[in-house]
Amino acid sequence: MDLWFTENHTENVRFSIKVDKQLYTGQSEFQRIDIFDSEEFGRVLALDGYVMLTEKDEFMYHEMIVHVPMCVHPNPRKILVIGGGDGGTVRELVKYSSVESVDLVEIDEEVVTACKEYLPQTAGMLEDPRVNTHFEDGLKFIRHHENEYDLIIVDSTDPFGPGEGLFTREFYGNCYKALTDDGIMVNQHESPFYANDAYAMQRAHKQIVNSFPIARVYQAHIPTYPSGHWLFGFASKKYHPYNDVDFEKWKKLGLKLKYYNTNLHSASFALPTYVEELLKDVE
Amino acid sequence: MDLWFTENHTENVRFSIKVDKQLYTGQSEFQRIDIFDSEEFGRVLALDGYVMLTEKDEFMYHEMIVHVPMCVHPNPRKILVIGGGDGGTVRELVKYSSVESVDLVEIDEEVVTACKEYLPQTAGMLEDPRVNTHFEDGLKFIRHHENEYDLIIVDSTDPFGPGEGLFTREFYGNCYKALTDDGIMVNQHESPFYANDAYAMQRAHKQIVNSFPIARVYQAHIPTYPSGHWLFGFASKKYHPYNDVDFEKWKKLGLKLKYYNTNLHSASFALPTYVEELLKDVE
Amino acid sequence: MDLWFTENHTENVRFSIKVDKQLYTGQSEFQRIDIFDSEEFGRVLALDGYVMLTEKDEFMYHEMIVHVPMCVHPNPRKILVIGGGDGGTVRELVKYSSVESVDLVEIDEEVVTACKEYLPQTAGMLEDPRVNTHFEDGLKFIRHHENEYDLIIVDSTDPFGPGEGLFTREFYGNCYKALTDDGIMVNQHESPFYANDAYAMQRAHKQIVNSFPIARVYQAHIPTYPSGHWLFGFASKKYHPYNDVDFEKWKKLGLKLKYYNTNLHSASFALPTYVEELLKDVE
Amino acid sequence: MDLWFTENHTENVRFSIKVDKQLYTGQSEFQRIDIFDSEEFGRVLALDGYVMLTEKDEFMYHEMIVHVPMCVHPNPRKILVIGGGDGGTVRELVKYSSVESVDLVEIDEEVVTACKEYLPQTAGMLEDPRVNTHFEDGLKFIRHHENEYDLIIVDSTDPFGPGEGLFTREFYGNCYKALTDDGIMVNQHESPFYANDAYAMQRAHKQIVNSFPIARVYQAHIPTYPSGHWLFGFASKKYHPYNDVDFEKWKKLGLKLKYYNTNLHSASFALPTYVEELLKDVE
Repeated sequence: MDLWFTENHTENVRFSIKVDKQLYTGQSEFQRIDIFDSEEFGRVLALDGYVMLTEKDEFMYHEMIVHVPMCVHPNPRKILVIGGGDGGTVRELVKYSSVESVDLVEIDEEVVTACKEYLPQTAGMLEDPRVNTHFEDGLKFIRHHENEYDLIIVDSTDPFGPGEGLFTREFYGNCYKALTDDGIMVNQHESPFYANDAYAMQRAHKQIVNSFPIARVYQAHIPTYPSGHWLFGFASKKYHPYNDVDFEKWKKLGLKLKYYNTNLHSASFALPTYVEELLKDVE
Repeated sequence: MDLWFTENHTENVRFSIKVDKQLYTGQSEFQRIDIFDSEEFGRVLALDGYVMLTEKDEFMYHEMIVHVPMCVHPNPRKILVIGGGDGGTVRELVKYSSVESVDLVEIDEEVVTACKEYLPQTAGMLEDPRVNTHFEDGLKFIRHHENEYDLIIVDSTDPFGPGEGLFTREFYGNCYKALTDDGIMVNQHESPFYANDAYAMQRAHKQIVNSFPIARVYQAHIPTYPSGHWLFGFASKKYHPYNDVDFEKWKKLGLKLKYYNTNLHSASFALPTYVEELLKDVE
Repeated sequence: MDLWFTENHTENVRFSIKVDKQLYTGQSEFQRIDIFDSEEFGRVLALDGYVMLTEKDEFMYHEMIVHVPMCVHPNPRKILVIGGGDGGTVRELVKYSSVESVDLVEIDEEVVTACKEYLPQTAGMLEDPRVNTHFEDGLKFIRHHENEYDLIIVDSTDPFGPGEGLFTREFYGNCYKALTDDGIMVNQHESPFYANDAYAMQRAHKQIVNSFPIARVYQAHIPTYPSGHWLFGFASKKYHPYNDVDFEKWKKLGLKLKYYNTNLHSASFALPTYVEELLKDVE
Repeated sequence: MDLWFTENHTENVRFSIKVDKQLYTGQSEFQRIDIFDSEEFGRVLALDGYVMLTEKDEFMYHEMIVHVPMCVHPNPRKILVIGGGDGGTVRELVKYSSVESVDLVEIDEEVVTACKEYLPQTAGMLEDPRVNTHFEDGLKFIRHHENEYDLIIVDSTDPFGPGEGLFTREFYGNCYKALTDDGIMVNQHESPFYANDAYAMQRAHKQIVNSFPIARVYQAHIPTYPSGHWLFGFASKKYHPYNDVDFEKWKKLGLKLKYYNTNLHSASFALPTYVEELLKDVE
């Protein structure tokens, strides 16, 4: 049977996934939530029609958003995740025994409920005792926290709809305040390729550069995101993203991963020239 | 008007480009050749229904297949390009004044004729006096050359149809012989993500490892190729791909590029763990 | 969100319906069963990926397969429906108080179960006390009945998969025997437009012509079936399909319908010349 | 190769034709003109992205728009065709030796030029000496003609873009005046099935009913038009569309046709009940 889920990467580009079944559909207060099963990608989570993750390639995104900063920071104990209701980021974080607590602030409780039922691959560690889930607007939550987190991961949707506020200067400024003196913020940073995504990337970078002394961008291959070329922002009060990092210490943790490794860590900060130029234009 | 060109990345994944016009279509002795105009990607060349290049992102592919080996080799004078009838690889090569001759061996004359007419962006330098174009099967051409080329670039189509022979052990062995003592061979090396592409990647790597003392793989983001994650093979008799490379010398050439830079050069050899494992499985 | 169900009318023609939700999916012993909700067509039933009905246009099919023979036959009391597990044909039949019993022989119980839950528009009258549902192969059921039914309606799927046997000469011959002396058989008769459908139409017509003294074909517009041009077979032992029919008597029943009317009754037997010729070729 | 032309029948329904080649594309003063070659339908003419005709099924449309009025009128000598630049309507008209002149008024000369080159099947008779082609706006042309034509055929595009004015009361009133005392006007009348088409159908019917004493609608199956159910308007000063028609006289002409026949003539005026009701609503 021919049932296809299509994401319009632009008005002129379509990416289509053959769907076997629709496992879940719901309209929450914030967005439409769909979970499909597919032969190529396993289960697929879409919010408002945009692919958030697939079981086949979500490890790329979640490993890169988590292990880069976790390798840089010498002692990350208290962590805040904003967005990330699918649980993939939390799953990677709780692999570290050094982590004492993770606050997960997800605006949409229905996302978490649906993922717990249909996406155990990502949501399976949301019950870890160190994890506290708050169903709140991250934009508001962050206002009430100061000097508290070693690491903030902004695992947001795209900068329209519920995720819009998470791309503003006010928000990044509040993240800065909520971090300890050697804190790090990492965010999903859109893509440099298609015009609208590149514009969002530039806007986010401009705000972060204005809020943090160290602000760099790193990249990964994520096939089910538009263009397959995805960026992350690394913003830091003290630590450089790859110079002086104690990679050997991290290797001794013995984590079994599928995408991230310490060679790729530094390499992921080497960007194509056209991306460097897009970023410099707003610095 | 809704006219869409679709490439089936797998049976279950479709990538579709809105087409404004079909500028050219022809059936050559070897393959069907189409050139479209599109709003998102400019002109698009497809062979047997597979996207070979688009004006929007071909620079990524052509810069990475050319400048990586050209930066490594201290004195590349005589160069062989197999495939590459669109002219993009030649265009990058003739940017180097050190290059004395480029033999372009393209099996399908109609590809070159069509690209000269409809793709001046890539084909515009095919008339450079240092370029000699041979309309021959690369597999046969290579048999008659020994100890002759400093660099061979295998800019082939996928390993089925006309490009099939360019992924065999016999071919790579003949490339080895055709190279000088410090020669380098670079080839388009398929992708690690979708199963069929990953299998082709492993098969190519296995053959190359058996033919060359140094054989490494590097990666780039190429949005219009399946998964956007594309690999190149770097095979060498003498030079390591990034240790001991004189990057400063290359920078002094002052080439204006959009993707390749010397930071990215070394970084592109750092691969995701799952790709490393796929390669190790066949080494 | 862009979720589209596509039926390939031929290898070169696609008909696609935007789906809001997948309400049901199941794999029965016989076929894959899907029910979707769509904005344009309401609920849609697909078997093995082929549209069987949509809430928007099923009235066209069901009214034409039922009321044409019911208007012709002067006293139809005992009726057999083969296939038709969605209940639409039964719904039209039980509008007649003269009908004493309807045997519904549907091979796939899961179709009936799913339709009762998700397609009340068609399945709502399956509980009428005059209806007896048999979950059996119609091909076998018919062998054990003789001189029993006034009307047999063959409301089958296409002539491959579970419906294949319902297009054979043996089956039509057994229908003839199962009918009373003035009985009528009506069947869904495929379409004349696309080559494969036209071939199925000719094959069915050939078998029916060989089994019944009167065998005529009538047509209707059914937009969600391939080409929108659909045919029905009218096979009869005694009654001509429109000469000598007592239309005034039928009108007095006062049935409220949306497609069928007595003008259209006779008119539907006037076929385009190319269809007449396709039929004559096999008579 | 997967190249598909899609017409959106509504926002939620897509009809897609696999295209082999684009034979012609142009942007005239009035509209975008495309001619494709396809395996299923042969050549396809699209204006502003809407299918106007395909070589496979254009005979249905052209036979029905021409032979119905030509059979009714006892002596049609002078004929006006408005629109119809593809030549299909003219091709059917010049089959009658009684026809003395055909004025073809097509607003867009490029349509005629392109069809003459790429659609000889329809355009092949445009050079008949009885045909005079006028590249003018039919809306203006008609204002200057009175009591002149025996038959006017309005072979227009849809009621938006260049064809918009051909669905107005002013236009139909001027057609009335341009006809002789026993003249007939036939027009393409959109479709009853999808909401927007049905609305256009009702609007056209309302205007025609107000302009002509006899105004009836007839139908045909045209698979490549939205829903496959297409209507024509028959408006007449004197002759009823099927009562008192001398069918035997017409049969003696011995025209070889593929769709139209005299049985179908009368039958095509018998409409489904829901269509009758849509029409009555505006009478």
